[in-house]
Amino acid sequence: MAELKRLNLISSHILGNFKFETKSNSLDQYRARGKNFNHDLLRRKTFEPFYDMYTLIWDLMKEKPDLYDHSVAADFDREKLKERCHRQIMHLFPKCGLNHELNLKNPIKKISMCLGFCTNDIVLGTRTVVHIVLYTEALTNLGTDKHLNLINRAYTLKDYGCLGMTEIGHGSNVASIEITATYDMATREFVINSPTPTAVKWWIGAVGKTSNMAVIFAQLILKGINYGVHAFAIPIRDYETHKILDGIIIGDCGHKLGVQGIDNGFMIFRNYRVPYDCFLDRFSQVTPEGQFASSIRNNKKRFGTMISCLIRGRVVCIGGMESYARNALTIAIRYGAIRKQFGPDGERSILDYQLHRYRLMPYLARLFASNAATKFVSRLYNSRIPLMRTDPESPLVTEYHWLITVFKSLSTWNAFKTIQECREACGGHGYSTYAGFNKLKQDADVVCTFEGDNNVIIQQAERYILQAAQVRAANKPIASQYLQFINLQPAKPKIECAEHLKHPEVLISLLEYRCNYYLVNAVNKLQENMGRFSDMDSTWNNTQVRYLFVLPQVFGELLMLKELNNFVKELQTSCPATAQIVQSIMLLYGVHVLENESGMIKTQFTENEVRWINDTVIELCNEVGENAVNIMDAVAFPDHVVASVLGHSDGQAYERYTKVVENAPNCYGPPEWINLIHEHRKIFN
Amino acid sequence: MAELKRLNLISSHILGNFKFETKSNSLDQYRARGKNFNHDLLRRKTFEPFYDMYTLIWDLMKEKPDLYDHSVAADFDREKLKERCHRQIMHLFPKCGLNHELNLKNPIKKISMCLGFCTNDIVLGTRTVVHIVLYTEALTNLGTDKHLNLINRAYTLKDYGCLGMTEIGHGSNVASIEITATYDMATREFVINSPTPTAVKWWIGAVGKTSNMAVIFAQLILKGINYGVHAFAIPIRDYETHKILDGIIIGDCGHKLGVQGIDNGFMIFRNYRVPYDCFLDRFSQVTPEGQFASSIRNNKKRFGTMISCLIRGRVVCIGGMESYARNALTIAIRYGAIRKQFGPDGERSILDYQLHRYRLMPYLARLFASNAATKFVSRLYNSRIPLMRTDPESPLVTEYHWLITVFKSLSTWNAFKTIQECREACGGHGYSTYAGFNKLKQDADVVCTFEGDNNVIIQQAERYILQAAQVRAANKPIASQYLQFINLQPAKPKIECAEHLKHPEVLISLLEYRCNYYLVNAVNKLQENMGRFSDMDSTWNNTQVRYLFVLPQVFGELLMLKELNNFVKELQTSCPATAQIVQSIMLLYGVHVLENESGMIKTQFTENEVRWINDTVIELCNEVGENAVNIMDAVAFPDHVVASVLGHSDGQAYERYTKVVENAPNCYGPPEWINLIHEHRKIFN
Repeated sequence: MAELKRLNLISSHILGNFKFETKSNSLDQYRARGKNFNHDLLRRKTFEPFYDMYTLIWDLMKEKPDLYDHSVAADFDREKLKERCHRQIMHLFPKCGLNHELNLKNPIKKISMCLGFCTNDIVLGTRTVVHIVLYTEALTNLGTDKHLNLINRAYTLKDYGCLGMTEIGHGSNVASIEITATYDMATREFVINSPTPTAVKWWIGAVGKTSNMAVIFAQLILKGINYGVHAFAIPIRDYETHKILDGIIIGDCGHKLGVQGIDNGFMIFRNYRVPYDCFLDRFSQVTPEGQFASSIRNNKKRFGTMISCLIRGRVVCIGGMESYARNALTIAIRYGAIRKQFGPDGERSILDYQLHRYRLMPYLARLFASNAATKFVSRLYNSRIPLMRTDPESPLVTEYHWLITVFKSLSTWNAFKTIQECREACGGHGYSTYAGFNKLKQDADVVCTFEGDNNVIIQQAERYILQAAQVRAANKPIASQYLQFINLQPAKPKIECAEHLKHPEVLISLLEYRCNYYLVNAVNKLQENMGRFSDMDSTWNNTQVRYLFVLPQVFGELLMLKELNNFVKELQTSCPATAQIVQSIMLLYGVHVLENESGMIKTQFTENEVRWINDTVIELCNEVGENAVNIMDAVAFPDHVVASVLGHSDGQAYERYTKVVENAPNCYGPPEWINLIHEHRKIFN
Repeated sequence: MAELKRLNLISSHILGNFKFETKSNSLDQYRARGKNFNHDLLRRKTFEPFYDMYTLIWDLMKEKPDLYDHSVAADFDREKLKERCHRQIMHLFPKCGLNHELNLKNPIKKISMCLGFCTNDIVLGTRTVVHIVLYTEALTNLGTDKHLNLINRAYTLKDYGCLGMTEIGHGSNVASIEITATYDMATREFVINSPTPTAVKWWIGAVGKTSNMAVIFAQLILKGINYGVHAFAIPIRDYETHKILDGIIIGDCGHKLGVQGIDNGFMIFRNYRVPYDCFLDRFSQVTPEGQFASSIRNNKKRFGTMISCLIRGRVVCIGGMESYARNALTIAIRYGAIRKQFGPDGERSILDYQLHRYRLMPYLARLFASNAATKFVSRLYNSRIPLMRTDPESPLVTEYHWLITVFKSLSTWNAFKTIQECREACGGHGYSTYAGFNKLKQDADVVCTFEGDNNVIIQQAERYILQAAQVRAANKPIASQYLQFINLQPAKPKIECAEHLKHPEVLISLLEYRCNYYLVNAVNKLQENMGRFSDMDSTWNNTQVRYLFVLPQVFGELLMLKELNNFVKELQTSCPATAQIVQSIMLLYGVHVLENESGMIKTQFTENEVRWINDTVIELCNEVGENAVNIMDAVAFPDHVVASVLGHSDGQAYERYTKVVENAPNCYGPPEWINLIHEHRKIFN
């Protein structure tokens, strides 16, 4: 059968049945239409602070193009995809120059590397995050000097680690995980156990086949008393033989929607004994005699500190999904210029249609907003992350935490929607795996759930915003600089005319009003519900829909608009033409956020105001649409990173597409199951 | 390596590492909470008129459970999935009792069969549609007596056919396809050619590996004159050897996002000669001397008739995607009862949370609305379809056409969104292929694009509705009974209080008002744009967003609400308790449609009215949510058809899940690429 496949491959090479002799130049035609601006400036500023790391990684990827071309891997099975991902890490990771000392000085560098990997593949990025962010940072932040050796082994890839938090029975509710670590004073060991069938670590990245080390979370039991969730660094496979150690059962979680290159696995513990030093003892300590001590008195805060390692992973989610949205838009916008359909005199580019622009341009604007969010959390990263180690209860850590839950949710949901709209905008050809959306879609889906289910983690931000409202109501100063605008008696800014909406400060004031409007609504509803429900838990849960749940979203969107506005100002000083392009994108973002509203706030606008909002969206979609190909040229990743036949910058979509189809396994051969056809013809003849 | 895999499989059977001794009964607990109603009545009425065919097919599927269990096929490669689909058709099709005479008398039976297949798998349904609906109905409707033999061969599966319409360069714009069929009077043959590199039939289902026959569409050229798109029934593979015939190049379109079991392929023609009788000559004729004649004078109408075969496929899209939404909700609702997370005293079912109910219940309501749409188009099918053959220009055919474009778009988009929300509502476990969403998602995606890209075909309905408005403006009677309510001076019905919204007639009047409001808006905008643009084409295209494009959606939603209301009335006569359950669902549908509005109409409501709408949505979500498990029990497909470990009716989600994971290829074995790990350890040690 392998023989047959090879023959088919050869014959298709010989045949080359598609002859695209005259190069179509629709993409170049579209390029000629846009305004002039400084592509290089926009590219560098967009990818700051990651630009140098990105170019390093992109150059490395160019060394082995097949290893990063998704079309090549289209027909790989699960094991081959895992192998491929492992190969990629072995290829790239050692050349990125990370080490422990550097990480303490410049923590964002590690994130830059992971995000660089995500520009091509979130699987590669996530599989790396699991080891060097989740595992290694857990050691760094929760461990002490005695764990330094493990940390150094991680940076040199001697160990490959994973982080075991989620169990099959408990995902979002980490505090209720069931695996226990019981201290045995006699042997000075911890005994790890799965006391129930649902006490199984599940979905743990890199555990299925690769890791020899793990940081796992378990309920710490000392003398029969449960001291809550704590972390342990434990060996799980023999370093020499790679055999699973006695007392642990490890398996692979099987086939999944995407990210097949990550070996998500499960772990069951049966009286698995680990030495005393496995306990990560920065914030809690256990004496050899089994006495508990902790520098963090409050149980809830201690728990929060233990699982705070998730923050770093979420930063990669924010930036990684921005990259996926970027790749989707690169493909759809270029293809939109190339693809022609209908038209009065000859067919026109589908990107010329109002509807098509409306489908894509707001997502392009949202890409810039997501980028502003990525840059925002990255800018704060180097000051906030060290605090988590030295002063985990600092208000700046709490603030960073809510900002990240908001942006993680908004960025991942937005990317997922962007990819889907881009897929549909490329019609049937968008459905081909070689277009690129297949991988983008499948991988992106899980990012809405992992590192904290969006629908759940966003509720932490609700609490933070509500607390700020309480502080404002009490006439005290709000701590967070990002919530200073909170006003519990907001007045709606009047829109004078459509043109008025194109002033950034008007848009910002409208989005501020929107936050305050929903905040007051939520506060009132909470008070109303306090009378209806007997406990705070029920009150809170029954005030979610359209009240609390909307807050993180509207606050996040305002913050992104402000950040994007700052970006425009920054560009203004270097190149006004470039700033003007981004300003249109920023305006489109803000006005589309209002236009797309399905909440109560629409009742606060007059019909004319809504018409002006709609008209402005259309006008800006057209303005941005005319420049969209050039904008993408400036801010797209290189062709070998995007790896899409439809989205290549040379515009030769049909030629690239048919070529990869002809070279796919068994393109021209008979079905491998031809006997079945002959058999059924005998039956039905 | 195969040896290794087998050993791993055996060892995992021996191990059985998950011991769920006490059966969890959360699902039964939830069942006990709901109201009593007649499950059997609701099931039968919901699946009418397909119930008998469905049960026949479900019984057949039970004979070979592995053949229809998606988990079994999770790791199949493309060729194996194609083989599997072919096996399924050979198993089921001959037992469904179709033939040509029966089809003329009772055309819906064929659709029932295809929809029955879709309850388990849209791949199976679509692959069958391609042959027995698209191919065979094209012969039946466009051919004449001389094609009867081909028709009979199709029903007995002697031939397997496909329909070649789309080309790589032309999808939605079928009128501009490039493949030509030139009549050669000397030999009385048609010569089929691909004159350009984009003149390639592409994405044609069942052509890649299976079909020996095809109906293809090509530009008919007689004596150098192009008479437009016509259909030809042509052989493409040798019946005995299954070799591709000389003059055609056929290949497989390669890897795609989903529906891998369908062998989508491409066809290039190089002076391929077919006999005179291949021309399907019901509506157009070519004399042996090459003279053209047609009973349909108008070129546009003739073209419409030629491609009208798509209508039937779209009916299967409507019902098939309803089934996919049904399966997604079956899984998510049952899992929502089983899965417990957080809670004040012990963990509670996630389905108990307001937010979770709000995420799922409106989609359950939309499922009932989609079902009403399926039943609606099915009820009309037997009267409308024969008309297409005898009187293709009848207004009833045109009306049926717009109804179907509306429902095809709404049903497919809705199902796609439902599946995604259900996947996310199942959290990480929803991401496992064994949960079932993987297949549902991938397959469903393409249905938004194939058989007419939703975004494009829906524009046909815009024209139809606009024409009705013109008729109303001229004070003439509107032909379609479904548009009688059109009123160009609509007054908004006042909502008196929240309770008021629970009267079906109030809701219907609000949704009627919504249609009329947007219709007037669109008419005004069209008039305004006529002044701004010089040609009708530009005027039309620039009135799409938020004006024309919204019309088919709001009209479709109203129609579904009315149909659902009729369904409630029908149930009322048999069982008031059952009718009451469905009435709550119907009300939730209508009120959620209003609540979820992001258009201008929200400005027509007072803030209080919107509050009442929101409150009513929450109230109905709770009411329906309490009964959701029982509702799903009544209207879910059988367990072996849904084929999900999380959605099984016995509630043993964790047990089924872990069992299938343990039995998946190489669950417990070392990586097949273990050498790579040893190798890298040597390098980094």
